[in-house]
Amino acid sequence: MTIESQNDHENAWGLLKALPEKLWGKVVDVAEKIKKFGEDDPRRITHSLKVGLAVTLISLFYYIRPLYDGFGANSMWAVFTVILVCEFSVGATLGKGLNRMLATLSAGALGIGVHSLATLSGDTGRPIILGFFVFLIAATVTFARFIPAMKARYDYGLMIFILTFSLISVSSYRENDQLLVMAYQRLTTIVVGSFTAIVICICIRPVWIGENLNNLVANNMEKLGKSLEGFGGEYFNITEEGPSMDDKSFLQGYKSVLTSQETEESMANLARWEVWHFRFGFQHPWKQYLKIGTLCRQCAYKVDALNSYLNTKIQFQTPSEFQSKIQEPCTKICSESGQALKELALGLKKVMNQPTSVNLHIERSKMAAENLKSLLNTTSLWENDNLQLIIPTGAVALILVDIVPYIEKISEALHELASLAHFKRVDARVSP
Amino acid sequence: MTIESQNDHENAWGLLKALPEKLWGKVVDVAEKIKKFGEDDPRRITHSLKVGLAVTLISLFYYIRPLYDGFGANSMWAVFTVILVCEFSVGATLGKGLNRMLATLSAGALGIGVHSLATLSGDTGRPIILGFFVFLIAATVTFARFIPAMKARYDYGLMIFILTFSLISVSSYRENDQLLVMAYQRLTTIVVGSFTAIVICICIRPVWIGENLNNLVANNMEKLGKSLEGFGGEYFNITEEGPSMDDKSFLQGYKSVLTSQETEESMANLARWEVWHFRFGFQHPWKQYLKIGTLCRQCAYKVDALNSYLNTKIQFQTPSEFQSKIQEPCTKICSESGQALKELALGLKKVMNQPTSVNLHIERSKMAAENLKSLLNTTSLWENDNLQLIIPTGAVALILVDIVPYIEKISEALHELASLAHFKRVDARVSP
Repeated sequence: MTIESQNDHENAWGLLKALPEKLWGKVVDVAEKIKKFGEDDPRRITHSLKVGLAVTLISLFYYIRPLYDGFGANSMWAVFTVILVCEFSVGATLGKGLNRMLATLSAGALGIGVHSLATLSGDTGRPIILGFFVFLIAATVTFARFIPAMKARYDYGLMIFILTFSLISVSSYRENDQLLVMAYQRLTTIVVGSFTAIVICICIRPVWIGENLNNLVANNMEKLGKSLEGFGGEYFNITEEGPSMDDKSFLQGYKSVLTSQETEESMANLARWEVWHFRFGFQHPWKQYLKIGTLCRQCAYKVDALNSYLNTKIQFQTPSEFQSKIQEPCTKICSESGQALKELALGLKKVMNQPTSVNLHIERSKMAAENLKSLLNTTSLWENDNLQLIIPTGAVALILVDIVPYIEKISEALHELASLAHFKRVDARVSP
Repeated sequence: MTIESQNDHENAWGLLKALPEKLWGKVVDVAEKIKKFGEDDPRRITHSLKVGLAVTLISLFYYIRPLYDGFGANSMWAVFTVILVCEFSVGATLGKGLNRMLATLSAGALGIGVHSLATLSGDTGRPIILGFFVFLIAATVTFARFIPAMKARYDYGLMIFILTFSLISVSSYRENDQLLVMAYQRLTTIVVGSFTAIVICICIRPVWIGENLNNLVANNMEKLGKSLEGFGGEYFNITEEGPSMDDKSFLQGYKSVLTSQETEESMANLARWEVWHFRFGFQHPWKQYLKIGTLCRQCAYKVDALNSYLNTKIQFQTPSEFQSKIQEPCTKICSESGQALKELALGLKKVMNQPTSVNLHIERSKMAAENLKSLLNTTSLWENDNLQLIIPTGAVALILVDIVPYIEKISEALHELASLAHFKRVDARVSP
């Protein structure tokens, strides 16, 4: 028993001694993860420092006597505004700031109006009138927040409208004399806070969500192009690059395109606020990006369908007669369409008209598609082949024929975007 | 000239007279749209009335003297809390309420700690210490808001943490004596406001987001089943229902499944807060719903690929020899898999184990798939057919063969869900 209990003791002691080491290991592990997370997108670190700076700056209102005397404890609203309005992107910050200022102004005015109405109805009637209006406004505006068109751009403003209206009208019951001063102070502090947030957001390394949307759509197009280009070589066993064939992540790139719809929509909504951007100014056709995104997604569904044939491919190692005959136009479509998408993406990233070489690639894929169609029409092709071999390869060919019009539609949509947004003409040297 | 100017006058007068009518027409139009919007989901109207009620109730704090004396103007924090915390679903309200209360408690305590530290360092050092900590906390917590795991569940709490910490620590510079009272009042008003919001949200027609997620996944599955079932009849020109063939919306039902990923994820995040739900209690396996959702989406991509063959189908009106031979197993897979999905959806909606008939449907589709595969292997089939006819129909057959394992995977995932969540056993009478 003594030895056992001694062993127990030693075990417990050993565990206890190992504990700090384990904990330290855990801490280091988490710290490394956080560090990596920050390094993945350093704009996150910049944004955090910007928020810290903005809050510290606005809290000077409290530390500096003359500023504090102006607003008193209500200066806190300026601090709150900065914290609430400072968002990662300029669009979100502008949207929240403008929403907050406009909502405060209009709700404050309405609150003072309701207060005047309530004072007419005597001491007993006053809380009833106030209560009725608070109920009415809260319920109506909450309902308005459900309407998609309102939700997309004014959700925050509508909430601040309820907040400010309740503040002014409910306070009016107790603070009859100070009401106008309070309404004025709330508006002023919120304007000061909003402008502080907006100025810091725009002046220190701004993140323009419009640019991000532009790049997201361009990157999606590029990934799609790479997946399509890679598919041809992969399906027909053409190994160009030799040793680099281990990394086949480019084949899966299209997958992120499949599920990016909601991200694109919310980015387009925020981008509309960025009216002062030097490149994507007022009335930039953000809706056109959504149209391009949808076309890319439809194209990605096709690429997904193609990719499902990669799994069945391994059954037949040697190319059949049929396969070797249609191989050339198929790989042509893959490479030319992929090239076209990649060049379109590059043009969009540089915010300029599509290079004329894109049309050449599209023409070539269309010719290859016509070629493929007529090959599929000639029945002589398959006389010595097995049905099990013909159908999957034929299905791949059909999908490829189907993809070409999408590439053309994407190119047309980009062309429309370029003319709507007055993209600069492409340099003549780029065209072949 | 006189006649002309008279005409102008009359025109202007006519326009002016028509203006109220036009405006009225516009108002009626908008009102009808809003009415329809409310009728589409009456829970929106209920929620709006609930918010109105909650705000009116909490503003009693202001109207009733003894309550007002306790908190004074700080009662406004309770009103704000109700407005900010009252969300459409119980999950969101609970999440925001708990986040707000916990963040206020912890940030308040930290703020008081920093205040004590700052008072040690004299009058000149105080604003510097306070400013440094406000910067540090604001920047660190803003960075933490980017981390996906934090963002998903604690985003709101982290923001309130910055707000409350700034409020307490910055105020401490001016309100030395009242600081503890203020921290206490802020915590109390926020607790009262949060509980008011939570109680009203749960007690009056609650909207449980967990139930919504359950039904969303079930509905998606049902739509997928209907699309799949409908496809068989449509592609092989089997008109069962006669006149009702005009409405082919069921064929497009799967499309909403393609893009529901983000909705499902955010619903699952909110559902985790609903620990007091009578049916989906604590530790309900919400992640399993995401797994089922992903499987349904992969299946929907296949159905999308199938649907693209409907457009090319019109070219051949009379069924070819090949087509008529594989028609039977193909339609069998469509109807049996579709049935299986619809029954699985029904079981999930009723929150019970899947009926045993599902396995029967799955077995039948697997047999049909095997049958189809062996048909495709026999080369004699296509001797009198054209390649242009064989490939699309063959591709449809291949996709159908490919779909069957997905149906089985969905059924398995649902089985896992049922055992993880202890769904009730299905009634014996339901099984055939």
